[in-house]
Amino acid sequence: MSELRKRTVEDASAATRDVTDDQLITGTRQHCLPPLKEEIESEDDAKLEVEDLSKTLPQGTYHTPQILNPVLSGFSDRWKNWIIRSISTSVMIAVFGFIIYGGPLVLMITTLIVQVKCFEEIINIGYAVYRIHGLPWFRSLSWYFLITSNYFFYGENLMDYFAVVINQTEYLRVLVTYHRFISFCLYIVGFVWFVLSLVKKYYMKQFSLFAWTHVALLIVVTQSYLIIQNIFQGLIWFIVPVIINDVMAYMFGFFFGRTPLIQLSPKKTWEGFIGGGISTVFLGLLMSYVMCQYRYFICPIEYSEALGRMTMDCEPSSLFQPQEYILPKSFQVISRMINGKETLTLYPFLLHSLSMSIFSSVIGPFGGFFASGFKRAFKIKDFGDVIPGHGGIMDRFDCQYLMATFVNVYISSFIQTASPQKLLQQVYSLKPEQQLQLFQSLKDSLENRGLLNIY
Amino acid sequence: MSELRKRTVEDASAATRDVTDDQLITGTRQHCLPPLKEEIESEDDAKLEVEDLSKTLPQGTYHTPQILNPVLSGFSDRWKNWIIRSISTSVMIAVFGFIIYGGPLVLMITTLIVQVKCFEEIINIGYAVYRIHGLPWFRSLSWYFLITSNYFFYGENLMDYFAVVINQTEYLRVLVTYHRFISFCLYIVGFVWFVLSLVKKYYMKQFSLFAWTHVALLIVVTQSYLIIQNIFQGLIWFIVPVIINDVMAYMFGFFFGRTPLIQLSPKKTWEGFIGGGISTVFLGLLMSYVMCQYRYFICPIEYSEALGRMTMDCEPSSLFQPQEYILPKSFQVISRMINGKETLTLYPFLLHSLSMSIFSSVIGPFGGFFASGFKRAFKIKDFGDVIPGHGGIMDRFDCQYLMATFVNVYISSFIQTASPQKLLQQVYSLKPEQQLQLFQSLKDSLENRGLLNIY
Repeated sequence: MSELRKRTVEDASAATRDVTDDQLITGTRQHCLPPLKEEIESEDDAKLEVEDLSKTLPQGTYHTPQILNPVLSGFSDRWKNWIIRSISTSVMIAVFGFIIYGGPLVLMITTLIVQVKCFEEIINIGYAVYRIHGLPWFRSLSWYFLITSNYFFYGENLMDYFAVVINQTEYLRVLVTYHRFISFCLYIVGFVWFVLSLVKKYYMKQFSLFAWTHVALLIVVTQSYLIIQNIFQGLIWFIVPVIINDVMAYMFGFFFGRTPLIQLSPKKTWEGFIGGGISTVFLGLLMSYVMCQYRYFICPIEYSEALGRMTMDCEPSSLFQPQEYILPKSFQVISRMINGKETLTLYPFLLHSLSMSIFSSVIGPFGGFFASGFKRAFKIKDFGDVIPGHGGIMDRFDCQYLMATFVNVYISSFIQTASPQKLLQQVYSLKPEQQLQLFQSLKDSLENRGLLNIY
Repeated sequence: MSELRKRTVEDASAATRDVTDDQLITGTRQHCLPPLKEEIESEDDAKLEVEDLSKTLPQGTYHTPQILNPVLSGFSDRWKNWIIRSISTSVMIAVFGFIIYGGPLVLMITTLIVQVKCFEEIINIGYAVYRIHGLPWFRSLSWYFLITSNYFFYGENLMDYFAVVINQTEYLRVLVTYHRFISFCLYIVGFVWFVLSLVKKYYMKQFSLFAWTHVALLIVVTQSYLIIQNIFQGLIWFIVPVIINDVMAYMFGFFFGRTPLIQLSPKKTWEGFIGGGISTVFLGLLMSYVMCQYRYFICPIEYSEALGRMTMDCEPSSLFQPQEYILPKSFQVISRMINGKETLTLYPFLLHSLSMSIFSSVIGPFGGFFASGFKRAFKIKDFGDVIPGHGGIMDRFDCQYLMATFVNVYISSFIQTASPQKLLQQVYSLKPEQQLQLFQSLKDSLENRGLLNIY
C-alpha cells in the first residue's frame, strides 16, 4: 500500500498516473483499487482517451486540513492519513447523530445539501473530461436544471404531506394545482436556453455535457427524492439502510481471503463477500431490534392538523409489534432446544431488515464496483476532496443511492398500502354518478368474493 | 440545393463531408442544415472529435428502394429524390390513417414499434461514435435495458386499464401487486451484468455507452409511455398534437423571409416562424372542430366489464360540448358584426387546441434545432434510412416527443380528474376488511345525500 502511494506522489505529473487504493482504514470505501500501470497504458481509448483528470480535479488523500498541519508534522504520511481519516470518521458519526436528533426537517435539508455537493462533483468531472474553457452559460445551465428538477421532485414530495397547510393559502394552491405544468415550463426554459447557447465550435462537447448533466440529475436528484420519501415513512427506513450499507462496506474489507471475486477489484475476495454478508445480517438485525422500541424511529412523519406541526407520534403499526411466527419443521427442533418453544416471537420489521441486509450484501458491492469502474474510466482517484482523508461526498454516498432505491421500491411493494381514508377522499371528488358506479362495482365484487354476507 | 447535393456525392469519401439539407419537399424536416465546410474544419473538438459517421451509419437521402429503381432510372437525382419522398409521404399518411382506423390497440403497438426503431437508431449512433468492435455483451445489454424499462412503463400504464381482467387471474395479480419490485429486480440484473461485463481496455467507452443507453431510454421509452397515456385519454389527444406538429414543421419551411431566426439554422427566418405559427393555430382549430364531432376520437379508452373488451363509447365530456363564451369588450363589436352575438359558441377543446398550437409554434422549432444540432455534433445527416427519402424514424418523430410530454403534462394539470376505474383498482388492493369499511362509509355517504335511492 504505502509503496504504491509513494509512487503516485513521485509520479504525479505522468499522464497515466496510478490510481491508489485507500480502503480498509475506515472501511467505508470498498472500491477504487489500483490498476497496474501497464493496464492503463494498454488502454485503447483512441481519440476518447482522457488526460489525467487528477491534475484538474480536487483529489482527496493528501488534503490535510490547515489546522492539523502543525500537530501532524511529526508523523509519517501513512500515519498522518490514518489519523485524518479516523478524525473525519468520528466527526461524520457525530454529525450523523446530531442530524438524526435534529429530526426530519434537518435530515431533509442535509439530504438536499449532500445532493447538491454530489451533483457538483459529478458535473466537475464532466467539465474536466470535456475540457470546457469559457463555454457560454454552461455552468449556469447545469445548476438551473438542478434547481428545476429539485423544484419538481421536492414539490411532488412535500405536496402530499403539507396538503392541508398549502390548501389554506390561495397563492400556494395555484403552485400545487399546476405543479407539473410549472415544472415543465421551467424545464422548457432550460431546454430553449441550451439550444440558444449552442456554439458551432463546441456542438459535440455541449451535447455530451447536456447528457452528462441529465445522467447526474437522474442519479442524484431522483434518488435523493426517494430518500426523502423513505424518511417520511419513519426514520427507521432511512437509518437502518444507511448503517447496514456502511457495515457491509466495512465488513467486506475486514475479512481477508484468497479467492478473488471480480477482476475489477482484485483485492475483493469471496471470503470477504460471504463474511461481510453474514456479519451485516446479524448486525442489521440487532440494530433494527433496538430501534423498533422507539416511536421516534418507527412513526411515519405526518402533519398534524390539531397540533399545527409535523409529528412523529403514532400507535406503532403491526410491523413494530412483536408477533409469533411458526417455524418450519426443521427449525422447530433447534428452537425448542434454545427457548423451549416451536415458535419465534419477533418484530415483523426484523424480516424486512433481513431483506435489506441481503440486498446490501449481495448487490451493494456491485454499486461499489460500478463507482470504482467509473473512477478508473476517467482516471480519477476520488470524486472530490470535501471530507479530509475520504475524498468527495460522492465517494461516501455512492452505494447509498442504490440502497435508497431498493428501500423505496421495497416499501411501495411490500409495506405501503393505500390508506382507505385517502381513497375515500378521492372517491368523493368524483361526480355523483361515478360514485354510484364505483359503489355498485365494489358491491358486486365484495358479494362475489362472499365478503359482504359475512358483514 | 442541387449543387450542394452533387458536391456531397462527389465528396462522399472526404472525412469532413458536408451534411446536406433535404427539407422543404415534404416539409416534415425543418432542421439539419448544411454547415459550411470551413465551419466543420475549424471545429476544435480535440480528442473528442468524431470521424465521419455517415460512412458507418445508414443515411437516408440516396436510399432508393429496389422496386423503384427501374421506374426512376430516367429521372435526374433531384427529381428521383422528390418522387421517392412524395411516395413515402403518401404512404405514411395512408398508414397513419389505417392505424387510427385500427383503434387504440393497433396504435399502441405502433407506438411500441416506433419506439424500438428510435432506440435502435440512437444506440447505433452511440456504437458508431465510440467505435465499439466486439465489446462483450453490449448490444444485448442495451436491448435488455429497453425491455426492462418497457416492462416497467407499459406495466404501470396497462395495469390501471386492464385491472379488472388482471385481477381475475391469480398469476397476473402477483405481477400487478409486485410490479415495481419485479421491474427493479430486472433492472438490477442489468446493472450487475454491466459491472460484470466491464473490460479493462474499454472502461471509458463502456461507461459512455451506459450513459448513452440511459439517455436514449429517457428520451424514447419514458416519452412513448406518455404518448400511450395520451392515447388512453381519447384519440384526439394523440392525433391533434401529431398533426399540429407536422403542420407547423411544414409551414415553418413554407414561408420564406429575410430575417434569420437562429445561427444554428440560418435558413429559418422570423417570417417563417410567425407565418407558420399563425397558420398552425388556424389549421389546428379547424381540425379540432371536425374531430370534436366524433365519439371515436373524443372518448377515453376504457375496459368495459359488461362487454368484456376495450370501448371507446361515452357521453362526451363537457370539453366536447359546445359552450357559450362571453367575449372581452373589445371583441364584442367584431363578433356582433360577424354573427350578430356578443358571445362565441365553441367546443372548450378548441381552447386547448389553441394552447397546443401555440406550444408547437413557439417551442416546437427548438426541438427541431436541438435534433439538428445533435446531428451536426456527430456529423450525421440522418438518424437512419428506414423511410425512403426521409431518413430514419427518429428524424420524423423528434419533435413529437417534446409535444407528447407537453400534452401529457397539460392533461394532468388542466384536464384530468380522478377516474373511477383507477380508484376502484386501488380499492381492490386494500385488505378485505378495509374494503368493507370503505364500502360502508361510501354507502352511508351516498344514502345521506339521497343518491342511493335513485339507483
